Amino acid sequence: MKLEHVIESQQFTVPLLMELFARARQMERVAARGGTRDYAGRIMASLFYQPSTRTRFSFEAAMYRLGGRVLSTEHAGAFSSEVEGEQLEDTIRIISGCSDVIVLRHHEEGGARRAARVSRVPVVNAGDGGGGQHPTQALLDLYTIYRERRTLDGLTIAIVGELDRGRTARSLAYLLGKFERVKIHFVSPPEVRMGRDILDHLDEHDVWYDLSTDVEPIAGEVDVIYQTRIRPDRVADGASLARCAIDERLLRRMKPDAMILHPLPRTVEIDKAVDGDPRALYFKQAGNGLFVRMALLTLLFERDDEEPDAPWPPQRRREDR
Amino acid sequence: MKLEHVIESQQFTVPLLMELFARARQMERVAARGGTRDYAGRIMASLFYQPSTRTRFSFEAAMYRLGGRVLSTEHAGAFSSEVEGEQLEDTIRIISGCSDVIVLRHHEEGGARRAARVSRVPVVNAGDGGGGQHPTQALLDLYTIYRERRTLDGLTIAIVGELDRGRTARSLAYLLGKFERVKIHFVSPPEVRMGRDILDHLDEHDVWYDLSTDVEPIAGEVDVIYQTRIRPDRVADGASLARCAIDERLLRRMKPDAMILHPLPRTVEIDKAVDGDPRALYFKQAGNGLFVRMALLTLLFERDDEEPDAPWPPQRRREDR
Amino acid sequence: MKLEHVIESQQFTVPLLMELFARARQMERVAARGGTRDYAGRIMASLFYQPSTRTRFSFEAAMYRLGGRVLSTEHAGAFSSEVEGEQLEDTIRIISGCSDVIVLRHHEEGGARRAARVSRVPVVNAGDGGGGQHPTQALLDLYTIYRERRTLDGLTIAIVGELDRGRTARSLAYLLGKFERVKIHFVSPPEVRMGRDILDHLDEHDVWYDLSTDVEPIAGEVDVIYQTRIRPDRVADGASLARCAIDERLLRRMKPDAMILHPLPRTVEIDKAVDGDPRALYFKQAGNGLFVRMALLTLLFERDDEEPDAPWPPQRRREDR
Repeated sequence: MKLEHVIESQQFTVPLLMELFARARQMERVAARGGTRDYAGRIMASLFYQPSTRTRFSFEAAMYRLGGRVLSTEHAGAFSSEVEGEQLEDTIRIISGCSDVIVLRHHEEGGARRAARVSRVPVVNAGDGGGGQHPTQALLDLYTIYRERRTLDGLTIAIVGELDRGRTARSLAYLLGKFERVKIHFVSPPEVRMGRDILDHLDEHDVWYDLSTDVEPIAGEVDVIYQTRIRPDRVADGASLARCAIDERLLRRMKPDAMILHPLPRTVEIDKAVDGDPRALYFKQAGNGLFVRMALLTLLFERDDEEPDAPWPPQRRREDR
Repeated sequence: MKLEHVIESQQFTVPLLMELFARARQMERVAARGGTRDYAGRIMASLFYQPSTRTRFSFEAAMYRLGGRVLSTEHAGAFSSEVEGEQLEDTIRIISGCSDVIVLRHHEEGGARRAARVSRVPVVNAGDGGGGQHPTQALLDLYTIYRERRTLDGLTIAIVGELDRGRTARSLAYLLGKFERVKIHFVSPPEVRMGRDILDHLDEHDVWYDLSTDVEPIAGEVDVIYQTRIRPDRVADGASLARCAIDERLLRRMKPDAMILHPLPRTVEIDKAVDGDPRALYFKQAGNGLFVRMALLTLLFERDDEEPDAPWPPQRRREDR
Repeated sequence: MKLEHVIESQQFTVPLLMELFARARQMERVAARGGTRDYAGRIMASLFYQPSTRTRFSFEAAMYRLGGRVLSTEHAGAFSSEVEGEQLEDTIRIISGCSDVIVLRHHEEGGARRAARVSRVPVVNAGDGGGGQHPTQALLDLYTIYRERRTLDGLTIAIVGELDRGRTARSLAYLLGKFERVKIHFVSPPEVRMGRDILDHLDEHDVWYDLSTDVEPIAGEVDVIYQTRIRPDRVADGASLARCAIDERLLRRMKPDAMILHPLPRTVEIDKAVDGDPRALYFKQAGNGLFVRMALLTLLFERDDEEPDAPWPPQRRREDR
């Protein structure tokens, strides 16, 4: 089960997901006993061209719980204009010379793929561009559901919010399509509904879905409400926004063992009164990011152990003389 | 002697201060022999919404000398507008899922208290808002005096500078009020004198104090001059500013075993010629911050060891089935 | 062979360079087996007033490979205006109280020297001001040539690019002047030629050099092309810029065992098609920065071990009573 880079959620097959989730479960136990020293001496480079304290801390804590060390940038992008014409590729070539894995958050779609092409060490995409990928978020979302239900087959889920641009909602829909008998309700104000490309993909793979504008009628039926952010300025109508939000009233309609997820940060779409309900799992979901990222790192490092790269530093022919 | 969070200097009783200072003394020895590995595996999250390199480095070095690891932000606040509507509370809930202690510098008064309310791990206030608290500064100030004099009872001190807004001067006055036979001279230009609330508090607790505008007449009498910053633009009159500053001439009036402290950074209120005098202890005072912060962290972690939290990650009822 | 601070390339004698390079070679082996724990417990403060992710990561990775820990600022300078009147000297005095070595990038020429004057721990200059020094870059440049050729005597080198302001080109020329029978071709557009001060220095030390505006005529003769950045806006004429750039056509004229170096980042002066040529060593050169910096740190720490400073924290006379 080789894993060279983590660039997009599409690269994960069902067997690889199952392997990842089994490891993530194991990592919960490792973290609970204070971590391991197995990867002492390994260095992660956290290269964030855009700031994201929560995602960065989750990756860096994962590396620490494995015993490793961290090189970190908070906002490399803010300062990049000062170095005229500097190329991402050259930066990656250099940084891969002093680290064992690179976690990259880049402002341009496709940035992670470009980085992987030239890097001597594994690259993990921690988000690239507004329309790009953020695969570890999708993986931790899926893991959270799997961990609670013990299977993803037969799942009925409502994916709710501003769906046209929401990359986490899109990635999750994509990954769920790989499992059996999944039913997806996409719920959004009409002006921000899920894009045609994802729906076409689900059609091709015979995944059941429908689109609606109100979460209440289906609240009693779903195993999961996956709520995403709604920026009020993108929705003309307050009432239409309210039909895609969760409050205590909606809780009463939900199944007793349902779960409410959210990739966070939230704005107005989940009322704070919901936080105390045992079905509100979004903070636990965020915490699962640590275990999924620990698991990913071990998969990447293992591949490294098994298939040793060329001797490092790379040898020139000259030295053979 | 339990310590759950460090939010404000008022929470420290005299016995807790004595316990803290004994540990800080012990930490000097620990640091001198290169630190300990006792807290290896523990993670501190340094969450600085405002930059403060010196304070942040002191906390992070304390964690390192104890063997731990550090997640760090230099200026989270500069970038927060990019995440619309993000709540401090949600951020803290998430970060407390991947760290063992949170050191928070926040731009709003009361930020540390809000954080402590939702955090699953101890929160240490590293400054909240201009009018807020910065308790570890007050603790290291007090420790420096205690370490040199071996007691705080019977102390005569001049607290000098821009006192109306100076949170360190205010916290120090508050803490000194807990000891016996303390005499406090507040010395400041008239327009920036110490606030009525602190004076009322000292009145209630029968602490001796007076207010004046010139440090020279009392220089020969005090055990400590606690000098604080004066921003020239807040004081109309250069002569009145000069009467609240320290130079070589003033040194000659001071007792041979007096001490000069300053929370730093300074501007014009201590002449550089004073630095070489053995009574100038402000750099040693800054260095004591390391030991006091090491001591605080051990107190917080111990509490953690004694009173284990709910199993982590938090278990849902669902899992009991 | 004592080394107290690393401030400028001029401080390195030939014997010290040879000692450094022998250690750097040893550090390649140490890094290849995953680093050492010899310096566990030591703390490096990375104090970057200007951002430079690549240089900072190289220093910090060097510290990690030695087993140490890192306090880090990404862009202290961006925030310094918020602290009115704060002095570099006071900051260094404080930070040297909670670290074992300070790596300083400062925006003012002479910043590193000022820091060294007041620091209680070694200071390493990671660049000070546009016209200032960046000695570790010059050292890794020289090491790269030495490592490939096994000697610096008898070297013929072309130093190419925007030479009037290029501090790396200037430092390299200075250091090369210390070796025997070195020949330097300075190649640049006429408006940005090498400064008179360096040429005078080479004259005084009887070092052979000439100045020209086209790299092609000498390409077949040199052992090294040391290419540096050319900012197109500083050169009026595109053709004159092209005569100082490297492309595949030029490769064909170069000796089979020549090497192409560049301090990076590059803009247009090395065509990407050159990257695949085995003589293109600029990424390996960047990687050598890690080993040279590891070597420098061990030299600085050793000095520390041999000549213990006054007991720390510094003792006051008062305590002798």
